Amino acid sequence: MGIRDAISELSPVLGQRLSLSKSDLQEHGRSETHFADAPPDAVAYPESTDEVRRIVQACARHGVPVIGWGTGTSLEGQAQAFSGGICVDFQRMNRILEVSQGDMDVRVQPGVTREALNEELRATGLFFPVDPGANASVGGMTSTRASGTTAVRYGTMRDNVLGLEVVTAKGEVIRTGTRARKSSAGYDLTALFVGSEGTLGLITEITLRLRGTPEAISAAVCAFDTVGDAVEAVMASVQMGLPLARIELMDTQSVEAVNAYSGAALPACPHLLLEFHGSDAGVAEQAQMFGDLAQEFGGKGFDWARKTEERTALWAMRHAAYHAIVAHRPGTKALVTDICVPISNLAHALEETRQHLDAQGIEGPILGHVGDGNFHAILQFDPEDAADKARVLEASEHLVELALSLGGTATGEHGIGVGKLGYMEREHGPAWGLMGTIKLALDPDNIMNPGKLVPPRN
Amino acid sequence: MGIRDAISELSPVLGQRLSLSKSDLQEHGRSETHFADAPPDAVAYPESTDEVRRIVQACARHGVPVIGWGTGTSLEGQAQAFSGGICVDFQRMNRILEVSQGDMDVRVQPGVTREALNEELRATGLFFPVDPGANASVGGMTSTRASGTTAVRYGTMRDNVLGLEVVTAKGEVIRTGTRARKSSAGYDLTALFVGSEGTLGLITEITLRLRGTPEAISAAVCAFDTVGDAVEAVMASVQMGLPLARIELMDTQSVEAVNAYSGAALPACPHLLLEFHGSDAGVAEQAQMFGDLAQEFGGKGFDWARKTEERTALWAMRHAAYHAIVAHRPGTKALVTDICVPISNLAHALEETRQHLDAQGIEGPILGHVGDGNFHAILQFDPEDAADKARVLEASEHLVELALSLGGTATGEHGIGVGKLGYMEREHGPAWGLMGTIKLALDPDNIMNPGKLVPPRN
Repeated sequence: MGIRDAISELSPVLGQRLSLSKSDLQEHGRSETHFADAPPDAVAYPESTDEVRRIVQACARHGVPVIGWGTGTSLEGQAQAFSGGICVDFQRMNRILEVSQGDMDVRVQPGVTREALNEELRATGLFFPVDPGANASVGGMTSTRASGTTAVRYGTMRDNVLGLEVVTAKGEVIRTGTRARKSSAGYDLTALFVGSEGTLGLITEITLRLRGTPEAISAAVCAFDTVGDAVEAVMASVQMGLPLARIELMDTQSVEAVNAYSGAALPACPHLLLEFHGSDAGVAEQAQMFGDLAQEFGGKGFDWARKTEERTALWAMRHAAYHAIVAHRPGTKALVTDICVPISNLAHALEETRQHLDAQGIEGPILGHVGDGNFHAILQFDPEDAADKARVLEASEHLVELALSLGGTATGEHGIGVGKLGYMEREHGPAWGLMGTIKLALDPDNIMNPGKLVPPRN
Repeated sequence: MGIRDAISELSPVLGQRLSLSKSDLQEHGRSETHFADAPPDAVAYPESTDEVRRIVQACARHGVPVIGWGTGTSLEGQAQAFSGGICVDFQRMNRILEVSQGDMDVRVQPGVTREALNEELRATGLFFPVDPGANASVGGMTSTRASGTTAVRYGTMRDNVLGLEVVTAKGEVIRTGTRARKSSAGYDLTALFVGSEGTLGLITEITLRLRGTPEAISAAVCAFDTVGDAVEAVMASVQMGLPLARIELMDTQSVEAVNAYSGAALPACPHLLLEFHGSDAGVAEQAQMFGDLAQEFGGKGFDWARKTEERTALWAMRHAAYHAIVAHRPGTKALVTDICVPISNLAHALEETRQHLDAQGIEGPILGHVGDGNFHAILQFDPEDAADKARVLEASEHLVELALSLGGTATGEHGIGVGKLGYMEREHGPAWGLMGTIKLALDPDNIMNPGKLVPPRN
């Protein structure tokens, strides 16, 4: 048995840090969303790149799957062990290795969470801007090419990872990228590994770009009569080049759930939540310009929160929205859609989505990173009711078809895992086959997170 | 003979657009810099993706090299046919296929030049910001991951290409990316092809991100006593988050060459050339802030050009600097170095470079995209004097070693071709082998621009 041999080989290396305990396996087989539990055969807690290398080498020798694990907050089953194997939990590799203030970058181990990183950076005047909501690990965020509320200004993980250390499927340790801000030195391996969901190797170190903490930050909310009006205001401000740091949509249903959950008292209509970063004068100018724009599209009650506490409360409310929505209908589970379309098609996509969900009688509050054309419908279903779940899956598929027909993507930021695997061929056509060719070349024995992202092997 | 068979097969398809004329072959075998001529066996001028597909398929069948050609302005021999084969000149595929003002993007064929594109965009209020100096084709810029003077603000081609159509080595037409602003749907094939220098496929269509033309643009020059002082001013402004659109260094030798060539009358000392983009108020604030900063580091004669003509003259002077330098010593050829280092090491790298060149008695004026840590030394040599050329090559190698020892890269923006091939192993270690694995998987017969970028096949 491959797995037994791998465990025998690794036990003397890792000792107690190779766990076979039932609760550990259970914990590492769970998903945040609706996938059935799929526990690994063992969980390893390496403390160094060298240990990761030894784990991968043992697994390669014995043909055992290797699955990386950060905080387990991925939404498409990326970290579940559908074919068993060894789960590599990076929680003990959570050090911040080097902050360079002059270069505005930081080298970290994959297990550090984004909140812990920003806490540590506070004194430096720098911060790491990518914010997917969950307190995910930097390794997990890199692996799924995460983004979130601030991508409209600061980009996604694609734009914020300068370089990587990776243990390949052969157990070789490689470095991609340099600390230079740009390079034309060959294939962009950094970009290839960012978003590869552990299917090509395990990331053991990440060099991140940092930003200067803005002199001034302010936030705002603004109500609109319709989602379409809100989107028009977003489009106009993007086209004007307003450097918004966040611009988030909550539809009426989301607002109602948030009101109930967070004790907010927002009017029951669509809202935009915004954040402005810049100099004092710059932030005031941005807020003013957005306020004027919003008014043109019927924006009401534009309320500008300059105080840190007000701002924190606003974003706490936004980040809790998913939980608010799920709590609003106890006993349900949720499938979270993640389509992203060209912004000129966003209003249409949102409208079609609402109509389809209403026609199907599916409850699906909508939250969106609308500056990027990305939004989530939280499709709730009764996990005990197979027909209900099937209906929700069908609706999710319908939304993906919609996104693709509008020049968009099945997933703006959650990734493929197994949840979006069925849409890859439709989105990419023969380019999906090319992804499979790369996977086959770099991981010929298919040990790195098998069954995810690429076409199944024959 | 493979090439004869390929030509026989393609002649009926392309007619006069498959050229065997000596002058055509000669023209497509030349390099901008110091590489010996290496003409192809034939030059094809396709007019459609389907013709490109047929060319690649014929070459695949007959084992003939295929080399893409834009405007021939690459600097590392990327487009030269060192193993013969068919050069695919994209000059007839130069259409702008679709401008979307709402989405601020454009779909183009690879043969369009950046100046032609911007000319066409003028009426839309949008522009394509990447500016490598030469009026390169968008396909060539994509293939070498070009950048230039504006990367400090707008990024490189990596950041400005949203998606591609590519004819793979197997002659399959694939599409990468979507028109959505972000996606987590699998491997980032767009990033893999950007900068791959035609070694994985031929790019037949590019979707580019555009920007809004700024309301106000102003430019400035500022003199400094030393290069070190100038760099300190650059670092301080980058760390302050000043959104400079361009910030370029010319050292004393460059200034002297430019004065002689362009009839400028700059004081003989290092200069920074800057450009500010933004609102009227924003630009004024940026210029003011930079002026204050520059003064701290001994900046003198900070001169702010608000008028379009003055600004145009300034950048014409900067763009002509390479020619100015070469013209300054008639009869010489030039090897242009391209190292890029973390900005905290930039002052040190510049100082070491100057010392080394002086010690070797090499004339090497320095121009730099200093906001990114990237600079060029224009190393002049007598092409008739083998020892002189060897000395210059040695100096170039020394600078690469310096860059790598400082956490940088051998090439910030010119790419690998054959000129930097010898440094790839040192820069990437085993990751270079992984590039070779990808090349082998996607182009098993090694027909796509063979001999460039990846390790030679055994």
